[in-house]
Amino acid sequence: MNSPIAAKEVSFTSAKKSSFPLDQWYVAGLSGELADKPIARTLLNQPIVLFRSGNGQAAALEDRCCHRSLPLSSGMVEERGVRCGYHGLLYDPNGTCIEVPGQERIPAKARVKAYTLREKDDILWIWMPKEDGSVPSHEPPDYPHHHDPKYKYGWGVYHYDAPYQLIHDNLLDLSHLGYVHLKTIGGNARLHMHAKTMVSNDDKSVLVVRHMPGSTPPPTYKAAYPFGDTCDRWQEIAFHVSHLAIWTGAVEPGTDAIDDPNRGGFHMRGFHGITPETETTAHYFWSMASNKHPDMPDTIDTVVEQTKFTFDEDRLVVEQQYRNMQRFNGQSDWTDIHVDAGPNRARRIIAKLVEQN
Amino acid sequence: MNSPIAAKEVSFTSAKKSSFPLDQWYVAGLSGELADKPIARTLLNQPIVLFRSGNGQAAALEDRCCHRSLPLSSGMVEERGVRCGYHGLLYDPNGTCIEVPGQERIPAKARVKAYTLREKDDILWIWMPKEDGSVPSHEPPDYPHHHDPKYKYGWGVYHYDAPYQLIHDNLLDLSHLGYVHLKTIGGNARLHMHAKTMVSNDDKSVLVVRHMPGSTPPPTYKAAYPFGDTCDRWQEIAFHVSHLAIWTGAVEPGTDAIDDPNRGGFHMRGFHGITPETETTAHYFWSMASNKHPDMPDTIDTVVEQTKFTFDEDRLVVEQQYRNMQRFNGQSDWTDIHVDAGPNRARRIIAKLVEQN
Amino acid sequence: MNSPIAAKEVSFTSAKKSSFPLDQWYVAGLSGELADKPIARTLLNQPIVLFRSGNGQAAALEDRCCHRSLPLSSGMVEERGVRCGYHGLLYDPNGTCIEVPGQERIPAKARVKAYTLREKDDILWIWMPKEDGSVPSHEPPDYPHHHDPKYKYGWGVYHYDAPYQLIHDNLLDLSHLGYVHLKTIGGNARLHMHAKTMVSNDDKSVLVVRHMPGSTPPPTYKAAYPFGDTCDRWQEIAFHVSHLAIWTGAVEPGTDAIDDPNRGGFHMRGFHGITPETETTAHYFWSMASNKHPDMPDTIDTVVEQTKFTFDEDRLVVEQQYRNMQRFNGQSDWTDIHVDAGPNRARRIIAKLVEQN
Repeated sequence: MNSPIAAKEVSFTSAKKSSFPLDQWYVAGLSGELADKPIARTLLNQPIVLFRSGNGQAAALEDRCCHRSLPLSSGMVEERGVRCGYHGLLYDPNGTCIEVPGQERIPAKARVKAYTLREKDDILWIWMPKEDGSVPSHEPPDYPHHHDPKYKYGWGVYHYDAPYQLIHDNLLDLSHLGYVHLKTIGGNARLHMHAKTMVSNDDKSVLVVRHMPGSTPPPTYKAAYPFGDTCDRWQEIAFHVSHLAIWTGAVEPGTDAIDDPNRGGFHMRGFHGITPETETTAHYFWSMASNKHPDMPDTIDTVVEQTKFTFDEDRLVVEQQYRNMQRFNGQSDWTDIHVDAGPNRARRIIAKLVEQN
Repeated sequence: MNSPIAAKEVSFTSAKKSSFPLDQWYVAGLSGELADKPIARTLLNQPIVLFRSGNGQAAALEDRCCHRSLPLSSGMVEERGVRCGYHGLLYDPNGTCIEVPGQERIPAKARVKAYTLREKDDILWIWMPKEDGSVPSHEPPDYPHHHDPKYKYGWGVYHYDAPYQLIHDNLLDLSHLGYVHLKTIGGNARLHMHAKTMVSNDDKSVLVVRHMPGSTPPPTYKAAYPFGDTCDRWQEIAFHVSHLAIWTGAVEPGTDAIDDPNRGGFHMRGFHGITPETETTAHYFWSMASNKHPDMPDTIDTVVEQTKFTFDEDRLVVEQQYRNMQRFNGQSDWTDIHVDAGPNRARRIIAKLVEQN
Repeated sequence: MNSPIAAKEVSFTSAKKSSFPLDQWYVAGLSGELADKPIARTLLNQPIVLFRSGNGQAAALEDRCCHRSLPLSSGMVEERGVRCGYHGLLYDPNGTCIEVPGQERIPAKARVKAYTLREKDDILWIWMPKEDGSVPSHEPPDYPHHHDPKYKYGWGVYHYDAPYQLIHDNLLDLSHLGYVHLKTIGGNARLHMHAKTMVSNDDKSVLVVRHMPGSTPPPTYKAAYPFGDTCDRWQEIAFHVSHLAIWTGAVEPGTDAIDDPNRGGFHMRGFHGITPETETTAHYFWSMASNKHPDMPDTIDTVVEQTKFTFDEDRLVVEQQYRNMQRFNGQSDWTDIHVDAGPNRARRIIAKLVEQN
């Protein structure tokens, strides 16, 4: 398939709102990021300040003082809100200016745009509205696995110099493991390429399931679990507009049904929040949870370390890919192969949502 | 007040001459900068070479050899002018090519544009004409304070990645001292914000006077003068199109009339030459003169050191402000507060002068 | 002469193919560069991967996997061709995809553009066609001097942030030696500027010959050959569209006919392959061969070292020149002097060839 969606996506250069699905929840950050300093972050072309004021409530405002355009993110967090570092205007979590130092009257227009922010499961979810003020039509996604007592997780935040859909492509097609990630979670390229793959979808999500029985355990697996020469590997990738949940792992060969939801063995549960920064750049918020083997108790930190390394390899490849698309002026007459079914369905879902903007 | 002037100023992106007041003197540099090497400097979008030839005369020419476009600023200063470093063409201070090595005849068109430059009070004043060749209609400004025997001064040259009028705004409104400059000349924010402020103007200048009796002396004042717990502070800011003169200081509380031009106490006399480089960048040439207290003889160097530090804080804030205006595509629907009277009058003066171009 | 050609050349900003002569051989690289890794190189705006596959054959392909646009230059060279580092597609030297891992059928459109590449005299010559698929109408240039047993050569590859014709200008006019290269091959500026210069040309080449009898030997000459106080210098510059051959050297004063092709003395034979990367940048592939004096056997390495240094001085000047042309918005109303005859003829040859595109 030539990919008209891809071609179109790449040619965007202006900051039109309509290039991303709106009236959607996106990941604005992870709870672990938000301490006593405000955070400046552009989401879907909108410069936003994230902060947690005195009462512990996380908030998201337009990152610009209405007086002289200083970024509020370079100001100070206080009990009642965030204070600009130039002339001291103070804003509450709703974006209302509640103090103008040296002046009794606060101008009626002294306010900045506020965004709906929900903190849930250690994730900061932001509602990106089609129109200013439109309220969320549904709750943000659940991600209870950050609280599962059998798992421990680590996390990270990456910035990509590449459009967000190239990250979707990368995560929905794990056949690249055999070429890109040989040092950690890769393994035999041929086996990855010939894995039995099942792809299904509805209008909001895509599910890609791959089984690779009789695999040689790759380095990360060996480091975390006492596998022998072979194992039965699975990969389950669930794509949603705001994030992907990727469950991978392996059991001893033949010991367990590879598709039993209650199977034992070694598990890696990855959360991948992919949020466009601009048409050509993206934020990548990830967490990786793993289960502890009783004989190898310190391995979860190793898994997280190696996950960081692996995700850096992906970033390198995807940024190279995007730079090369730019060398060819965004021209992208792509030739599809068997691995592209999942990624292409995700692109179709997003294209449809963008049309509805 | 919404500031239509500001909005207009920010939206300029092309190099139209009309965005700056012309037929005006601007500061091209300070005498201390001009030694045996030429200086490359773009002023009001015009690339210029400054040099001092053998007879000591400072000159300003178009910074481009008419032969093959090498910058004359990378050539050599000689007795009779400046020589290009590629094929050796020699130009006199009037921009006339007076030697073509290896060739008898000098082509009639072998010349570059010359600018009227006056060196006065250790300042290099350049006349930026409305039309090529228009001669100065008046003398450059006086600044005799560089020669006042009671004062000693230090100086510096900064480059700003921000439009020049944002620097005017910053200097005409010293209420920001309480938020931005706490380490040097700041002090209590509330006191700064509630200072009695008098603003006046004519069609070429703005005067802002602020009195803060009963102030706690800020760190720089303490370092330079034996103040006790409080002092009576004043700030007098005179805005002109080419520069600002800012007189600040303090006397012992109650000992002296704060508005007596002959008052004693501690004085800081700042010269601030603000010259646009382009629509989005600026040069900032400053000097700071201070008087010596008999018991604290080495303090002037301290004052100059701390001035550098303070002006760096300003640059950081103003460049942040401008980057943020760019993040918001230059959109600048500014809400005014009480401190903006002075800056807004200066913007109106410049807008009127630009209209006359 | 005002140079309308130059002005036109500089104003190009888009990637129109027609700005360079086509159906021409250009230097794509030097044999010494091509080992076991592919090389990414943009030539005439076209991103190309150079590699040498298992049978030793050098090849040049469009640098983009047809599947998802990864640069093939970040893949792996194999026996049969180059393999993409993302999903493993393998391409042969003709650009045909000969393997899609995990898939039997190879899509008919799975191929990338191939370029005609000839390796000859340690130089990689690439045919840049007017239309895709046009075959070479003639053989690439000969450069037998890389094999001359009396000579030894060293080489280098430079990248220029300047349009390629500014490098032609620089090499065709060696009068700049007296201002730019005083530390190596320069010498007395006046002598260079007054050298007897003969310029001739046909529709494909320009020849500039300069004689400077009675010259003081410059540092590089002294380091390589036992000259006394003076020598008779010559410079012979042959310009071709793809490269310049520059023969320079000197004989003892009066001992030898300076224009005898079989003269003795000290020789430097420079090859200068100048290939546009884009309208505003260029590749510079050079080699420098020199003859060994029986009493000074180690001098060739010295000559190559000093050549590198000298060529870096040229790059500095030419890049300064181009940056300054950009400061003046490409405006280039150049005033010609006596040294410009050679460069201007080369520009006319190229202008004519570009017209024929």
